[in-house]
Amino acid sequence: MSGALTQEIIAIKRDGGVIPDDDIKSFITAVADGSMPDYQAAAMLMAIYIRGLSDHELAVWTTSMLRSGDVIERGVFGRPAVDKHSTGGVGDKVSLPLGPAAAACGLAVPMISGRGLGHTGGTLDKLEAIPGFQVELASDQFVEQVRTVGIAIVGQTPRLVPADRILYALRDTTGTVASIPLIASSIMSKKLAEGIDALVLDLKVGEAAFMRTPEAGRELAAAMQAIGNENGTPVTVCLTRMDAPIGNLVGNATEIAETIDVLKGGGPDDTKELVVELGAEMLLASSIASDPDDARAKISTSLSDGSALEVFRQMVAAQGGDASVVDDPWSVMKKASNRIDVKAPRAGVVAEIDATGIGIGALELGGGRRQKTDVLDHSVGVEMHHGVGDTVAEGDVLATLLAADQGVDQAAKRVASAFIIEDAARPDTPTSRIIEIIRP
Amino acid sequence: MSGALTQEIIAIKRDGGVIPDDDIKSFITAVADGSMPDYQAAAMLMAIYIRGLSDHELAVWTTSMLRSGDVIERGVFGRPAVDKHSTGGVGDKVSLPLGPAAAACGLAVPMISGRGLGHTGGTLDKLEAIPGFQVELASDQFVEQVRTVGIAIVGQTPRLVPADRILYALRDTTGTVASIPLIASSIMSKKLAEGIDALVLDLKVGEAAFMRTPEAGRELAAAMQAIGNENGTPVTVCLTRMDAPIGNLVGNATEIAETIDVLKGGGPDDTKELVVELGAEMLLASSIASDPDDARAKISTSLSDGSALEVFRQMVAAQGGDASVVDDPWSVMKKASNRIDVKAPRAGVVAEIDATGIGIGALELGGGRRQKTDVLDHSVGVEMHHGVGDTVAEGDVLATLLAADQGVDQAAKRVASAFIIEDAARPDTPTSRIIEIIRP
Repeated sequence: MSGALTQEIIAIKRDGGVIPDDDIKSFITAVADGSMPDYQAAAMLMAIYIRGLSDHELAVWTTSMLRSGDVIERGVFGRPAVDKHSTGGVGDKVSLPLGPAAAACGLAVPMISGRGLGHTGGTLDKLEAIPGFQVELASDQFVEQVRTVGIAIVGQTPRLVPADRILYALRDTTGTVASIPLIASSIMSKKLAEGIDALVLDLKVGEAAFMRTPEAGRELAAAMQAIGNENGTPVTVCLTRMDAPIGNLVGNATEIAETIDVLKGGGPDDTKELVVELGAEMLLASSIASDPDDARAKISTSLSDGSALEVFRQMVAAQGGDASVVDDPWSVMKKASNRIDVKAPRAGVVAEIDATGIGIGALELGGGRRQKTDVLDHSVGVEMHHGVGDTVAEGDVLATLLAADQGVDQAAKRVASAFIIEDAARPDTPTSRIIEIIRP
Repeated sequence: MSGALTQEIIAIKRDGGVIPDDDIKSFITAVADGSMPDYQAAAMLMAIYIRGLSDHELAVWTTSMLRSGDVIERGVFGRPAVDKHSTGGVGDKVSLPLGPAAAACGLAVPMISGRGLGHTGGTLDKLEAIPGFQVELASDQFVEQVRTVGIAIVGQTPRLVPADRILYALRDTTGTVASIPLIASSIMSKKLAEGIDALVLDLKVGEAAFMRTPEAGRELAAAMQAIGNENGTPVTVCLTRMDAPIGNLVGNATEIAETIDVLKGGGPDDTKELVVELGAEMLLASSIASDPDDARAKISTSLSDGSALEVFRQMVAAQGGDASVVDDPWSVMKKASNRIDVKAPRAGVVAEIDATGIGIGALELGGGRRQKTDVLDHSVGVEMHHGVGDTVAEGDVLATLLAADQGVDQAAKRVASAFIIEDAARPDTPTSRIIEIIRP
C-alpha cells in the first residue's frame, strides 16, 4: 500500500500515467470488499476506458481481480484442464457439443459460463431448457464433477471474482463496457479462477459481435494473450465470423436439440466446423494431440463414435437434468406451441442473414432478455431454412418462428428483414467461419 | 428530452462527441433532483475532464446548472448589479474592502461567497471573526439588504444551484476538480444566479493558485467569458499574480483588521492596488464610470472619504455583527493569545514569499481547514513584517505567528521556509499584481 488517496490513484490514470502495482491491488481489494464508493470506481473505469492500461497494468489489474475471490488451484482435476470461452454470438451453442467432445478426448473442461443479454444467447439459459438442469454448483461439487465426468458447465458463484461482478454492473450503466482492457480483465479473471492450464478463446468478429473488425479483434486477442502470458496460462485465440447466426436454430430448447444433432455426428456444417476447429485447439493446447490433423480427427471421432454424446449425457444427469433428452429431445423439453413461417418477399440469393435481427427476433418471442431480470420462455426461437448463398423463390419459407403468445408480429418483421436477398450470390462470401487462429 | 439512456449520453462525451442540448438539460435536471446515480455522474465528470466541452456545450451545461435552483432576477436591486469573484488566494481579503467601496460608488453588490479549504482562505470565514455576523440569509433578506445597504456577503443557500453542490462533492473525490469547463461552469452558474448585470473575475495565476501560468489562466478566462456571452452577462477577467500572500496579514480576524485599514484609506499597497483596479473594472462594467481613470478615482475617493467604511459598517450591522469592529477591531474580535517571531536565518534580500507555505502555516495554527468539517480558530494567523524585495539582516523578524495552543512548531517551520532569502534582489521582481485585464 502506497497510502495514496483514491482520487490520487484515479488522477494518475486520468492523466494517462501508469498506476503503481500496489495502488491497483488496493483499489481492486477495496472494490471487492465493498469499501470503494461506486462513484470513485466509475471515475476510474471511465479513465481506463479513455486512457487504456499498459500490458503490465492489465496483468496486475486482472490478477488482483482474480485474487479478490475463490480460486480453483491448478492440477485438482487429475488431467489437463482447458476451457473455451466465446465472446458471444447468435445461435452460438458451440460450447455445448464442444465441451463434452473435448472431455471425451481426455481433457478436463471446468466451464464457468454466462447468460444471454440483448441479441446474444447464453449457454446457461440453453441448458436450463432441460428440465431439472442445475447451473449452480458449490465449488467442491464443481471440481468433483469435472474430475469424474470430465466437464461441468455452471454459473459464476458469488465468491468467484467478486470485484468483476461489481465492476461489470457499473460498466453497464456508465458507458464503459466497450473497453479492451476492461473486457479482457473481466473475462480472463474469471477464466483464470477455474484452475485451467490453457484457454481457447473464440473471439467473435462481425456485424453481430462486439468487435466489428478483425483489427479490433486482434487488439483484444493481444490483451488476453498478454494477461495469459503474465499468469503462465497460454491463450489460443480463434477469430471467427459473427455475421450470420451459427447453425440453423436460435433459441434455448432448439439449440439443445441442435447440440444433440451435432453430438450424434450430424448438425449444420458451420457448427460442426467450429466444434472441430476449436476442439482441436483445446487438444493442441494440452498436448493430448500431436498436430492439428490429429487433433481434428480425435474431436471428429468423439462425435461420430458417441463418446462425446455419452459425456454430455453424464453431465446432464450429474447436474440434475433429465438425461433422456439426448435420446428424444422433444419428449423432454417444452416445444413452442405455434409455428409461423416467414416467407421470401422476392426471388434471388440469400446474400446476408443479419444475426442481430435474428437474435432480437428470438428475444421478441420471449427467448432473450432486454434486462437482466427478464424471465425467459425456453421453448421459443427461430428456425432458419436457408443459409447465406442459397437460391430462393418468392414465397419460399426462409425461417419459422417457434412462438408462444408474445412478440410474434415484431419478431416476424425482425426476422424477415434480417434476410437480405439479392439478384446473385456475392462473390466474396466466405466458406469458413474461421478468420484466423492466433496460437500463444 | 431525447429519451437517450444516461449511459448513451455519457458515451457521447466519452468518445469526444458533442452532447445534444436536451441531453445536457435532462442530465443536470436528474443530478439536481437526486435521480442521477452518483456513479453515472462520476463517469460523466471524468469523460468531461478528459474530453472537454465545446463553448456551446459549456453554456448549456452552465445554464442548466443555474436553472437547477433558485435564481435572482435581474433588475431587482434597483441599481446596476456587479459582483467580483476571486479564484482564491492566500491573504485574499480583497472582496471585503472592495465590495463596500463599489457599493459606495452606486453599485449593487450581491456577493455569494465561499469558505476556505487547504492553503486558501474564505471570505465567509473572515466575516465570521466578527462576533454575531451571520452569513446565512434567506433569498428575500439578501435581496432586500443589497437594495438598501448596497451589498450583502452571504453563503450559498441549499436552493442555489443544487446541481453544483452535488457535482462539486463528487469532483473532490473522483479526481475531476482541475477541469476548466467544470471549474468555469461551477463558478459561473453560481454567479449568474445572483441577478448580476456584469461580473469581474479576479483570476489568480502563480505558484499558490490553481492556475500556475498566465496561459492556463487565459484558457479559463476564455471559458468564463464564453459562458457570460451566451448568457448576456459581460465578464471582465483580471489575471493577477498569486505567488506571495496579499497584504501583510493572513488569517481571519487579522484580515478583517487589515480590511478596516484599507477602508480607512490605509493598508498595504498591493491590497489597495487590487481594490482600486478591480473596483474600477466593476464601475466600468456598469457604466457608472466613464473611463478607467475616472473609475479608479471614484473607488479611491470612497476609501479616503469614509463612504466605503460606512457601507461596510452598515453591512456588518445588517447581518447581525458588532459594527463597532470598524472603530476598534481588537476590542470586538478575539485576539490570538501568543505571538511567536520567525526570524531571518541569514542576511540578504527577500526574493520570494511562498504563499502556499504561509497559508498552510496559518492552517497549522488552526486558522484553516484540511477537511470541510474542520472548525476554525478565527483569532490565529500570520503577520508578515517584510515583503518581496526587502533587505533583511540575520535575526530580523520576518513574520510573527499569531497563535493559540496548536501547531506552533509546524507553522514556524512552514513560515520560515516560505521566506526565500537571496544575496540580491531578483531583477525581474514585478511591481504590480496585475498581469493583464481582459475586458469582455
